[in-house]
Amino acid sequence: MLSRVRSAVAHLVSSGGAPPSRPKSPDLPNATSAPPAAPPQAPRSPPARAGSGGAAPARTVEARASFSRPTFLQLSPGGLRRADDHAGRAVQSPPDTGRRLPWSTGYAEVINAGKSRHNEDQACCEVVYVEGRRSVSGAPREPSQGQGLCFYYWGLFDGHAGGGAAEMASRLLHRHIREQLKDLVEILQDPLPPPLCLPSTPGTPGSCDSSQLVGPQSCWSSQKEVTHESLVVGAIENAFQLMDEQMARERRGHQVEGGCCALVVVYLLGKVYVANAGDSRAIIVRNGEIIPMSREFTPETERQRLQLLGFLKPELLGGEFTHLEFPRRVQPKELGQRMLYRDQNMTGWAYKKIELEDLRFPLVCGEGKKARVMATIGVTRGLGDHNLRVCSSTLPIKPFLSCFPEVRVYDLTQYEHCPDDVLVLGTDGLWDVTSDCEVAATVDRVLSAYEPNDPSRYTALAQALVLGARGTPRDRGWRLPNNKLGSGDDISVFVIPLGGPGSYS
Amino acid sequence: MLSRVRSAVAHLVSSGGAPPSRPKSPDLPNATSAPPAAPPQAPRSPPARAGSGGAAPARTVEARASFSRPTFLQLSPGGLRRADDHAGRAVQSPPDTGRRLPWSTGYAEVINAGKSRHNEDQACCEVVYVEGRRSVSGAPREPSQGQGLCFYYWGLFDGHAGGGAAEMASRLLHRHIREQLKDLVEILQDPLPPPLCLPSTPGTPGSCDSSQLVGPQSCWSSQKEVTHESLVVGAIENAFQLMDEQMARERRGHQVEGGCCALVVVYLLGKVYVANAGDSRAIIVRNGEIIPMSREFTPETERQRLQLLGFLKPELLGGEFTHLEFPRRVQPKELGQRMLYRDQNMTGWAYKKIELEDLRFPLVCGEGKKARVMATIGVTRGLGDHNLRVCSSTLPIKPFLSCFPEVRVYDLTQYEHCPDDVLVLGTDGLWDVTSDCEVAATVDRVLSAYEPNDPSRYTALAQALVLGARGTPRDRGWRLPNNKLGSGDDISVFVIPLGGPGSYS
Repeated sequence: MLSRVRSAVAHLVSSGGAPPSRPKSPDLPNATSAPPAAPPQAPRSPPARAGSGGAAPARTVEARASFSRPTFLQLSPGGLRRADDHAGRAVQSPPDTGRRLPWSTGYAEVINAGKSRHNEDQACCEVVYVEGRRSVSGAPREPSQGQGLCFYYWGLFDGHAGGGAAEMASRLLHRHIREQLKDLVEILQDPLPPPLCLPSTPGTPGSCDSSQLVGPQSCWSSQKEVTHESLVVGAIENAFQLMDEQMARERRGHQVEGGCCALVVVYLLGKVYVANAGDSRAIIVRNGEIIPMSREFTPETERQRLQLLGFLKPELLGGEFTHLEFPRRVQPKELGQRMLYRDQNMTGWAYKKIELEDLRFPLVCGEGKKARVMATIGVTRGLGDHNLRVCSSTLPIKPFLSCFPEVRVYDLTQYEHCPDDVLVLGTDGLWDVTSDCEVAATVDRVLSAYEPNDPSRYTALAQALVLGARGTPRDRGWRLPNNKLGSGDDISVFVIPLGGPGSYS
Repeated sequence: MLSRVRSAVAHLVSSGGAPPSRPKSPDLPNATSAPPAAPPQAPRSPPARAGSGGAAPARTVEARASFSRPTFLQLSPGGLRRADDHAGRAVQSPPDTGRRLPWSTGYAEVINAGKSRHNEDQACCEVVYVEGRRSVSGAPREPSQGQGLCFYYWGLFDGHAGGGAAEMASRLLHRHIREQLKDLVEILQDPLPPPLCLPSTPGTPGSCDSSQLVGPQSCWSSQKEVTHESLVVGAIENAFQLMDEQMARERRGHQVEGGCCALVVVYLLGKVYVANAGDSRAIIVRNGEIIPMSREFTPETERQRLQLLGFLKPELLGGEFTHLEFPRRVQPKELGQRMLYRDQNMTGWAYKKIELEDLRFPLVCGEGKKARVMATIGVTRGLGDHNLRVCSSTLPIKPFLSCFPEVRVYDLTQYEHCPDDVLVLGTDGLWDVTSDCEVAATVDRVLSAYEPNDPSRYTALAQALVLGARGTPRDRGWRLPNNKLGSGDDISVFVIPLGGPGSYS
């Protein structure tokens, strides 16, 4: 996320007073009008940690902006310095000697901290135990019901306009997911369909027997079936929202600067859930076949959502922007002429007579990596950005950003996976210069050079992917073998084996 | 569209005064804030005609509700009576002896008018000539520039809550498309990319030379490329909107009752444009392969769009509905308990504590063919419905409905089509009981029984598809060979040959 926010850091505006406990405006499209109350056990923000070699910094803006890397990298002070060296752009991976990541997951990153100190990618990989919060029935828990759940968790967080959001999300998002799953521990392990209604407090017998399921005034002929899988999806979606709300609450006290894209994988009870908010990407490479597991959320892919919001809530445009899209900036001298445009309902283009308000800046402009919302930000989903304002203005951009991920589900049990089948997660630093097919070719090339049961093969693959996107220094730049420029952005890659040693454990 | 509107006919409310010329409320999501002004040549509503055998009825509600069928069926008074006979449910097609439909298109329908007199499907098939409105450059037209354009047009219109909208759309929508294309006649025939800006009036030299294309204050590094194809898509999208606006204007004078789904195909300059607003469906069957050319717009497929609008504009819910979805109706005695819900941001489900406002009726409820918006209507896109209100209420439903189609483009020149490759259009009466695969099997079975150059084979195929969905009278009902109930709805089918005799002419 090197260049996706223009002039934003210079325009971060701290709010003057303490933020309200739930600071959502009713204008926000990504806020729930009646969301479940945050559980009292909701994760609190622990102090930030630098890499394992560094001491916990003091609580100042300077300290928060200091350089930190994922704990699992086990970086020594020297390794931390090397990672921080933009000239060298060292590729970092967890050491071969230490404890391996779960499932022998491979990881590699290159952080160009010298160029974008405040925007480093962050990563997290954890095994998380979820203890049930209470018995569904309200009856005293039997020992067999006391079994908790484990989920495996991988997350990539690509920061922009400050490093705080990515760093905070990498420490806390999985805890929010755990909180959301606590109420579901029994339900998810019960082969029966989830109950539609639960008693309010433990000990209160449920008054939701099936005789009440369809009232006479209902237009339903039957109740809707809700699957276990859709409960996990809902838990992940709400965890993203609660993470975002926590960032809003703590943005002053903890200096949560900027925002971040979040790409998260949860493995639970045989299924892989891939949740993406931003422009990172996940693909499965299975027997050479590419299965897309996410899509990117950018001003181009979300144009109609953004335009609709600007149309329905014109006050969010502040008289400075128009919700219409034009193929280029309209000039004052073109008033009265006819120019191509698109509105929130159109995928095609048509001509319209230029009027005065069409001279406003378009809400969405630019193409590809240069596309921007309000001339500022190049991604439309993610966490944070509560302080982000339009350049030279106080107009907030957050109402147009969604913190909700799209969640795709992959059932691991439906296919016999071999050790060469992998799920690859990468930030845009990888995908900007590497196609899905090129990644699949690298998967084949690298993994075939290692024994199937060699657990280091996935780290070697992650390193190869990062190196292939970074390139080597040549001709005054980092260049790929085809002499094109490599990615000057942070590059972070997880390679998760779907049938390798240690999977499913 | 037999049962997709509940109790709606009984609740049609005529407005008290003359409607304004552009009666769009700023609340409407499907209205353009700065739409191109309706051209002075915009189609006016000609008198309705009954089938060719019938005289034009007088201008009364009774007359408008009378039974009319597409002119191209060339129905005699006797044929019209047979079509109107619900007991017989005769399959009607254009006569073999008359003028064939363009491209030897096949058509068949069965209209159960006795059961739903006000909701008949309507159809239209035309070759439309578009004369250019003016020269793009403003210079006097040279003879070679005077060449107009022809497009081929097929439309299916499935009415609900009254027959007026479907009947009006079948007579006028292609004229709106023609109007939108008039300004594009020269541009579409010019191999150069479309100009981004046009002079306001003929004779005014364009001041849009390329030196002005990027202003210094612009965030664009270059102008956006707009294709000819996307101009045609925009023309079709705007034609749908203008058709809908005309229905709103004329609803009192012409008694435009109800609404309709619209599925329209335009063939122009080598490409097939399939525009769908509603729950009809189009598929291409090519060498046995199925290529979907549309998707359905229903309360289920558009749930999140509807919920977002209800959330952003709660006044549209009138205090009677909640934008949240529940898997069944919430009971007052369940207050304080926790029930599964989804909001506009969620695809998964989660539990929330039931509060007082959750007892309101959900904006979206039901499943499959029983899914409804505001307990009333089962489709979420289409034309008309300006008078549709919630049962026992004055709350308008139209703000939640979109008149905009999704347009998919198929390039006929990219593949060598054989006479057995067809585009099949059908109203939901066909697809409710027939899968895409079953249609493809029928295509293969029927067409292989005819010589490839026999132009009657496509009508035979359309008849077979309609018969297969209707079934035969048996065991007190219309039954399919597998003894399941056939479709009790109107069934209309076009079979458009993509490589047959007469195509591309």
